[in-house]
Amino acid sequence: MELIHLNTIWVVLAAAMVLFMEGGFALLEAGLVRTKNAVNVTMKIFVDLTIGALAFWAIGFGFMFGDDAGGWIGLSLFGSPESIDLGMDLPSAAFVLFQLGFAVACISIVSGAVAERMNFKAYVIIAALIAMVLYPISGHWVWNGDGWLAQLGMKDFAGSAVIHALGGAAALSIAWILGPRKGRYRDGSVNVFAPSNIPLAASGVFILWFGWFGFNAGSTLNAADGMLSSIALNTMLGAAAGGTSSMLYTMFRYGKTDPSMVMNGALSGLVAVTAGCAFISQWSAIVIGLIAGLIVIFATIFIDSIQVDDPVGAVAVHGFNGVFGTIALGLFDMEAGLFTTGQTELLIAQVVGIVAIVVWGFGGGAAIAYLAKVTVGLRASAEEEDEGLDMAYHGIPAYNELDRFSETTKALYDFEASTGVSIQETKEFLNPKV
Amino acid sequence: MELIHLNTIWVVLAAAMVLFMEGGFALLEAGLVRTKNAVNVTMKIFVDLTIGALAFWAIGFGFMFGDDAGGWIGLSLFGSPESIDLGMDLPSAAFVLFQLGFAVACISIVSGAVAERMNFKAYVIIAALIAMVLYPISGHWVWNGDGWLAQLGMKDFAGSAVIHALGGAAALSIAWILGPRKGRYRDGSVNVFAPSNIPLAASGVFILWFGWFGFNAGSTLNAADGMLSSIALNTMLGAAAGGTSSMLYTMFRYGKTDPSMVMNGALSGLVAVTAGCAFISQWSAIVIGLIAGLIVIFATIFIDSIQVDDPVGAVAVHGFNGVFGTIALGLFDMEAGLFTTGQTELLIAQVVGIVAIVVWGFGGGAAIAYLAKVTVGLRASAEEEDEGLDMAYHGIPAYNELDRFSETTKALYDFEASTGVSIQETKEFLNPKV
Amino acid sequence: MELIHLNTIWVVLAAAMVLFMEGGFALLEAGLVRTKNAVNVTMKIFVDLTIGALAFWAIGFGFMFGDDAGGWIGLSLFGSPESIDLGMDLPSAAFVLFQLGFAVACISIVSGAVAERMNFKAYVIIAALIAMVLYPISGHWVWNGDGWLAQLGMKDFAGSAVIHALGGAAALSIAWILGPRKGRYRDGSVNVFAPSNIPLAASGVFILWFGWFGFNAGSTLNAADGMLSSIALNTMLGAAAGGTSSMLYTMFRYGKTDPSMVMNGALSGLVAVTAGCAFISQWSAIVIGLIAGLIVIFATIFIDSIQVDDPVGAVAVHGFNGVFGTIALGLFDMEAGLFTTGQTELLIAQVVGIVAIVVWGFGGGAAIAYLAKVTVGLRASAEEEDEGLDMAYHGIPAYNELDRFSETTKALYDFEASTGVSIQETKEFLNPKV
Repeated sequence: MELIHLNTIWVVLAAAMVLFMEGGFALLEAGLVRTKNAVNVTMKIFVDLTIGALAFWAIGFGFMFGDDAGGWIGLSLFGSPESIDLGMDLPSAAFVLFQLGFAVACISIVSGAVAERMNFKAYVIIAALIAMVLYPISGHWVWNGDGWLAQLGMKDFAGSAVIHALGGAAALSIAWILGPRKGRYRDGSVNVFAPSNIPLAASGVFILWFGWFGFNAGSTLNAADGMLSSIALNTMLGAAAGGTSSMLYTMFRYGKTDPSMVMNGALSGLVAVTAGCAFISQWSAIVIGLIAGLIVIFATIFIDSIQVDDPVGAVAVHGFNGVFGTIALGLFDMEAGLFTTGQTELLIAQVVGIVAIVVWGFGGGAAIAYLAKVTVGLRASAEEEDEGLDMAYHGIPAYNELDRFSETTKALYDFEASTGVSIQETKEFLNPKV
Repeated sequence: MELIHLNTIWVVLAAAMVLFMEGGFALLEAGLVRTKNAVNVTMKIFVDLTIGALAFWAIGFGFMFGDDAGGWIGLSLFGSPESIDLGMDLPSAAFVLFQLGFAVACISIVSGAVAERMNFKAYVIIAALIAMVLYPISGHWVWNGDGWLAQLGMKDFAGSAVIHALGGAAALSIAWILGPRKGRYRDGSVNVFAPSNIPLAASGVFILWFGWFGFNAGSTLNAADGMLSSIALNTMLGAAAGGTSSMLYTMFRYGKTDPSMVMNGALSGLVAVTAGCAFISQWSAIVIGLIAGLIVIFATIFIDSIQVDDPVGAVAVHGFNGVFGTIALGLFDMEAGLFTTGQTELLIAQVVGIVAIVVWGFGGGAAIAYLAKVTVGLRASAEEEDEGLDMAYHGIPAYNELDRFSETTKALYDFEASTGVSIQETKEFLNPKV
Repeated sequence: MELIHLNTIWVVLAAAMVLFMEGGFALLEAGLVRTKNAVNVTMKIFVDLTIGALAFWAIGFGFMFGDDAGGWIGLSLFGSPESIDLGMDLPSAAFVLFQLGFAVACISIVSGAVAERMNFKAYVIIAALIAMVLYPISGHWVWNGDGWLAQLGMKDFAGSAVIHALGGAAALSIAWILGPRKGRYRDGSVNVFAPSNIPLAASGVFILWFGWFGFNAGSTLNAADGMLSSIALNTMLGAAAGGTSSMLYTMFRYGKTDPSMVMNGALSGLVAVTAGCAFISQWSAIVIGLIAGLIVIFATIFIDSIQVDDPVGAVAVHGFNGVFGTIALGLFDMEAGLFTTGQTELLIAQVVGIVAIVVWGFGGGAAIAYLAKVTVGLRASAEEEDEGLDMAYHGIPAYNELDRFSETTKALYDFEASTGVSIQETKEFLNPKV
């Protein structure tokens, strides 16, 4: 038996866990948005998993891992990512599958920030372009050995910068251009739209948390990596610490423990340890997580203060904490040590890298949004938004309310029996769009 | 360290993922049926996982993998499947667990097609007989080396034919005999019963998708199988392609992207690549998936046109695409090649095999349905169907609507305080069966 | 490649599955309680996963696995569990992560029994103390080689006693001291509060079932353990048998197949085989499961008869079946055999062990509850309980009912348009706490 066989099942299982995270994104978003848009956010995740995945497989992979052209872009492997020569004990198909999971996750970060008011066709275009162009190009800079940020010495183990900060920066510019949901900001104050389904959102977080073990530990791509179990433990401790600080902060500051913040706090801990999980101690993971759980609260308030509407907090969780995690690795890296020249050099590389990625993500996101705007139109119409995107784009509500109530149904049957008006007619009268 | 140790954890983990798919079936069905039957479909999946699993373990396994008697049936190992001599680097208990997952999945395919109107006791009998007799006998033909279809050269890597087409064919005949739900077909037109909970259904799809990596890649039963990661990647690409074509078709044909079709499209891609995932290229997996995502749409329309009522589309997804996937393997098999004698021979074996399995599944399903009909009665009474099977068979609604509404609850308390009528009485008045 | 690399990924994956079980606990509880407390039970699971996990990591681990002091307690490794010297082919971080999952699961058992009426801050204290002190000390007795129960020869492979019986005993005493929910027992009869969301509860069971394969088979901590796949198979058969007996019993005794009992029956089978899964035959696992599925029914009735209110049946599932599973191992252990001196000795060790653990759990639980009572107060106020803990502690309902209904929302807009009363005002009028 060879190491390659062990690595094969390790990376395939980790990839399956990463792809399962899409379920987490979908349920988290469906729970946090208003009911009338819960189907739409779910369908957008299906766009990521279908069209987005094929777009990355056919095109994006080549830009990311193809033969390097000057440190800026890869230019080979289009349509045949499996022909990559990895030079490690891992079949190329396992590597491709794992990278597919990462690309799809990056798109899904954006999906949350633009929830509840984007034209569905615009989303299809945006998702495809993120997977084909935006994500793989900056990914090439860091994760291809010849990329200019890799050459500079930037470290990002599992993607705080490459995936989360990039996705968060693109989410910010696209949400900005898209504009806020109707009625979100009135007379300078924020109108809170309450999450529609907290248990559903929590289901999503549990799936994301589970998948993140594959996301981070799977990034070893090598089961014999001596740090593998430490990575997994750091992932857990970062998440636990992130949830702890956001829980205690909201409990003592507001008198209520805010579920959305606790969930986003745990996710923020996960995002923030993702860059450094292979390079830092357990105590560092806890410290990073604790800070991340507070960052998400203030970032959420800040983003609302500039009136960029992010219904699920994607920019605060992935953008802000992706940036924080990338820089925190420069502070806590065990190899570089504290107050050494090595640390200074690493920190410079981290800062240059994260600035480059955020600028690229923000600018590229804006360009993609503009492209969607001038082709199919970026935004749902005011009527579609009022009605809810579920009925407008999918012709079906998330929860079929009339069937939900046996007494209502019974009443409908009784009404039919006594008046002759059919149930269908009554339903249409009560809820014209069903 | 030996290969057997690696294979042990590989197959145990894959089996756990396959068994987790039962959660996927349950949530998918609970989301697609009407609210008043959501508990019942969930309980039917528990029948599969409990009585069905024990029935297969004790009896079915022996028919499937016992010593061959003439190529048609196995006849040993009853009550002690672990005593099988596998002749491979895998403990027999891991093999038994994995096969248990497959058998339970096959039953669950049928469960969806008969939703919302079957007598619960009839379902228990049907589930046990599928697990004990129907599935294992035709499974023996293909997956036992001495089986007559295996001897003929039929290939079915992970069960497009053995599990999905068989389950789909049995689902078709049982649903046919059972008859449609009340009010489903009126004056020759189809009365659409809207799915009750789309996010719940989507949760089910995400779990199924995740579990399918265990289903297909786990079918190697060998972590050193050189195709393992290619199988996993093909699984992903088939699913992505299936979802893509059904999404784009419904988007452009109907103007609305239909969530049920997108979900069933992705599942159809999974079903269709299941036979060939170990033998075909990545591009072939995409082509197969794209076709599968269209087949499911037309198959759904066709099945409704013959007035067989399949509330979740199980026949279209598993039956039609199980058949398609089995034949597609004959077209895309890399070993046989295109336009060769080998391909012709393989195609003949595939066609003979799938015809045999569909005939067996359809006829055997009918026989089992008849047996249930003459013993406990196949169909719920009209009153039970009106009321919903949740109250009729389980005494509880899926969602306890009165507790859901704090204002309602508050009103009940106020009403009690002011009139003296107890909350219990008011609840019973409003919803007599709670 | 070394065994340690295989063990690393095995234990990391198993630990991820165990930690994913927290999602199962959360959804199961959220589905079984009344809607007005669904957020609160979910947030309590987040307490377990965040504060509870950090408390065990920093302190509890040292009490459990630190250097033994007289067989009763460990006293080292505080703040640095990874410095443990395992003396096996496994990195310490993987072991720590796996044990973290166990500790968090133990807390979560208690969370269900105290649902719907506990002060949230009291729960935080209780969760931290279970993870820091209660669970690790008795865990030390059994799972540290020098512990007094280990020395006595007590066997508990994956924690029927150490985790489940302990958690169940603590749940019993804490729930007792906490008192029943308002209106639960009136005039000597039990007032049934119907579960709010059965599909959600079922989702939880599927996740728990999936995670349990990691829980039990992962307890080998060694992929080369010859019993590994037999353990996984026994886990499945125990669960299937538990669900079977509770399903058939409620079907024939009450005429209705009770979903809560079927789900708790399957979980009871899992709990009961957890101690013995590595030491018993497949048939024994089935027998144990069948008995466990009946025990849970009678235990539930018994606990209600002494008016201890356990909203989700945690004491019946984990407490009673934890005790049963621990003793059953003494009866079915293959090594000891039947009617041998070895069996007698083992049975005595099992009985002594389980009595010690139950007494410790019950007494320790009471002490912890008392501590919470005199500091922050154990119980929610009557007003908070009436209103629901979701609004009281988290300021948000589980399901945002007004947004759920497009016709209601539409009516609100119409009302605003015609009267000038804002939607916000109307909402507040209808549901003052939103």
